[in-house]
Amino acid sequence: MATLDALLSDARAAHRSLARLTGPERTAALESVARSLAAHRDRILAANADDLRLAPDSLGDAMRDRLALTPARLDGVIAAVREVAAMPDPLDEERDLGTRPNGLRVARRRIPLGVVAVIYEARPNVTAESAALTLRSGNAVVLRGGSEALRSNLALAAAVREGLSAAGVDPNAVSFIDDPDRARVTELLQATGRVDLAIPRGGHALMAFVDAHARVPVIRHGAGVCHVYVDRAADLAMAEAITVNAKAQRPGVCNAAETLLVHRDVAAALLPPLGRRLRALGVELRADEASRSILEGAGVPAAAAAPADWDTEFMGLILAVRLVDDLDGALAHIAAHGTEHSAAIVTADGAAGERFLREVTASCVLLNASTRFNDGGELGLGAEIGISTSRMHAFGPMSARELTAEKFVVRGAGQVRGAA
Amino acid sequence: MATLDALLSDARAAHRSLARLTGPERTAALESVARSLAAHRDRILAANADDLRLAPDSLGDAMRDRLALTPARLDGVIAAVREVAAMPDPLDEERDLGTRPNGLRVARRRIPLGVVAVIYEARPNVTAESAALTLRSGNAVVLRGGSEALRSNLALAAAVREGLSAAGVDPNAVSFIDDPDRARVTELLQATGRVDLAIPRGGHALMAFVDAHARVPVIRHGAGVCHVYVDRAADLAMAEAITVNAKAQRPGVCNAAETLLVHRDVAAALLPPLGRRLRALGVELRADEASRSILEGAGVPAAAAAPADWDTEFMGLILAVRLVDDLDGALAHIAAHGTEHSAAIVTADGAAGERFLREVTASCVLLNASTRFNDGGELGLGAEIGISTSRMHAFGPMSARELTAEKFVVRGAGQVRGAA
Repeated sequence: MATLDALLSDARAAHRSLARLTGPERTAALESVARSLAAHRDRILAANADDLRLAPDSLGDAMRDRLALTPARLDGVIAAVREVAAMPDPLDEERDLGTRPNGLRVARRRIPLGVVAVIYEARPNVTAESAALTLRSGNAVVLRGGSEALRSNLALAAAVREGLSAAGVDPNAVSFIDDPDRARVTELLQATGRVDLAIPRGGHALMAFVDAHARVPVIRHGAGVCHVYVDRAADLAMAEAITVNAKAQRPGVCNAAETLLVHRDVAAALLPPLGRRLRALGVELRADEASRSILEGAGVPAAAAAPADWDTEFMGLILAVRLVDDLDGALAHIAAHGTEHSAAIVTADGAAGERFLREVTASCVLLNASTRFNDGGELGLGAEIGISTSRMHAFGPMSARELTAEKFVVRGAGQVRGAA
Repeated sequence: MATLDALLSDARAAHRSLARLTGPERTAALESVARSLAAHRDRILAANADDLRLAPDSLGDAMRDRLALTPARLDGVIAAVREVAAMPDPLDEERDLGTRPNGLRVARRRIPLGVVAVIYEARPNVTAESAALTLRSGNAVVLRGGSEALRSNLALAAAVREGLSAAGVDPNAVSFIDDPDRARVTELLQATGRVDLAIPRGGHALMAFVDAHARVPVIRHGAGVCHVYVDRAADLAMAEAITVNAKAQRPGVCNAAETLLVHRDVAAALLPPLGRRLRALGVELRADEASRSILEGAGVPAAAAAPADWDTEFMGLILAVRLVDDLDGALAHIAAHGTEHSAAIVTADGAAGERFLREVTASCVLLNASTRFNDGGELGLGAEIGISTSRMHAFGPMSARELTAEKFVVRGAGQVRGAA
């Protein structure tokens, strides 16, 4: 690898040339990247098999699931790149704001952010999808993935760069830092004026590191301590289906639920059948005293929740369970323990539902739907670079458009400003 | 003053209660603030007279102009607060994104950012206008103004808080830090999780301080090294009027021009009459060799520009002048020396104009209009908290809407997500 300094200079130059291309030229480059990924399919899958084989046993099932690039998932990655190629180019967009009384015509035009650094952990699909979205939006990207996925990421990045070269585009628009030394992450986070945005994707440890070191603008894609609240007025069959889906459909991802909050009045009816279904799926329950006594009383094993459980992103088949007295109790718990990621209420009471949607601060709040829908594709944005838990700039799933800024464009006929 | 810690806790609580008010209630609070400012008019003007009297001679005319709160300017401040009261409430806004194939209804809803810290220098009008815009958007604001304006700011903040109390709103939604110790600024910039956004408004020294210390999200309102480029195809009378306006109409503000770039082919025709007009207005010219020889040859005194002049926000009646070979030369100069604030081209050549508008990265790019129009009011946004030179979140003038985030709101009927 070149030094980080050289790599950032090369990325800046590549960003400039990429931003100067037309939308159709960026589309052609993305199609070339998709073809190159397909051409290098076997090499990428073999590299991922190596990563999985060499992964320590301590990695855990959920992390192993995140790391695994099955043929179907690689097809999904290639399809995502094609989907990004088919997206409207965000940089062609000029939004008219009308004509001022003095005749000035005011508009806003989308421009790239510049050089974007993405710092992430296991999932290798992030490598190709981040590259595609930054290319679509005229940015250069510097990728720093987790060491467990190093071989997969290098194979993916090489294929992406080869696709760019084949399309006549500077391959330095996508670079991958293969030096495992964490000092490189610190340097990225402190490269003021050279890195325009850092996107860290990960858990508490990465976010604490970013808090301590970042000098460049940051949009965090932080841990999802996501909540499902089952209200007194819930349809209990719906509540059961949503909870099971939110927890168990893919437990290793950030929009999976970690905590179930249950209105005291429906706990006795909801928890025994729901608990049995979750246990049958292998979910460990960590319950407060009141919910535990209901579960155990119905023969459903449940551990006593420790205080830390309310603040933990389990990334696996564990669910914390707590009874609350009412909607206020649920709102207070979520405000204290949520990470502003995703929160769902299950209720047939329209007023309670709307109050929850209004008062919970999270990137996505849901009524009668699973937290798993907090996802760029599911919400209609297309592919995503991740889910922002920063309120600033973009909150929730970020696609190509969220990787741009808007400048004001003013067209006049000689106007000057009068006395202030 | 309470300790900063207590002040931030009080601000958080006030933000929560403010966000829970209805739009009309926030409007009523703003109208009460405007009435209170009008009622305390004499006290505020007297405090400002004290600040001006006690200001050191070293302050300079431009800074003195920024500090001065004339009766007309105070009327302007009160009118701005009333204008903010009349704005549509950004928090009532829910933007429909349509219904997904699975029936989920997706929308985005605006929410406040939380506690906003504004760190600024001389202009006391910032105190009341920042307070009004943060109130409109449901945020609490913590203000840290310059020491020269301390008495003015305290009088303004006291009037704002009294207006809030009179409307039954927690006055801690607006607080002013009167401790001159710079350690308070560092504490504000490092209050992760307690300050949701810091807005520093000022020059290079403040920005360097922010770069070195900030841990919270920052939107910079940095120096404006703004450019006017007079193209070969310019209408020279228009170029003269725009340059004079951009430089001299109000030289102490950030959207005033600092550098005039002139296409070599029109320099001999443009510079002598323009130079004479600028000199008559008291503008000192600092010119590169080629433009200086034209100016001096026509009897217009001009100093030799030093390298630092191309990167200086003069905040006064000084203009740097440089000849360029062509549009490319102008674009290269602006890319190297501009601060991404404002840049104008004067030309009758549509292709050259559009290329300038497309290729210059600045919060506002203008064709045939003065840089002085980069202003919230002039661009139709209404009152502004300042002009962001950060590309992230908001680029250019920021009004109430730019002080909000958008969360995703999803309404379903029991939807769960299928296998990934």
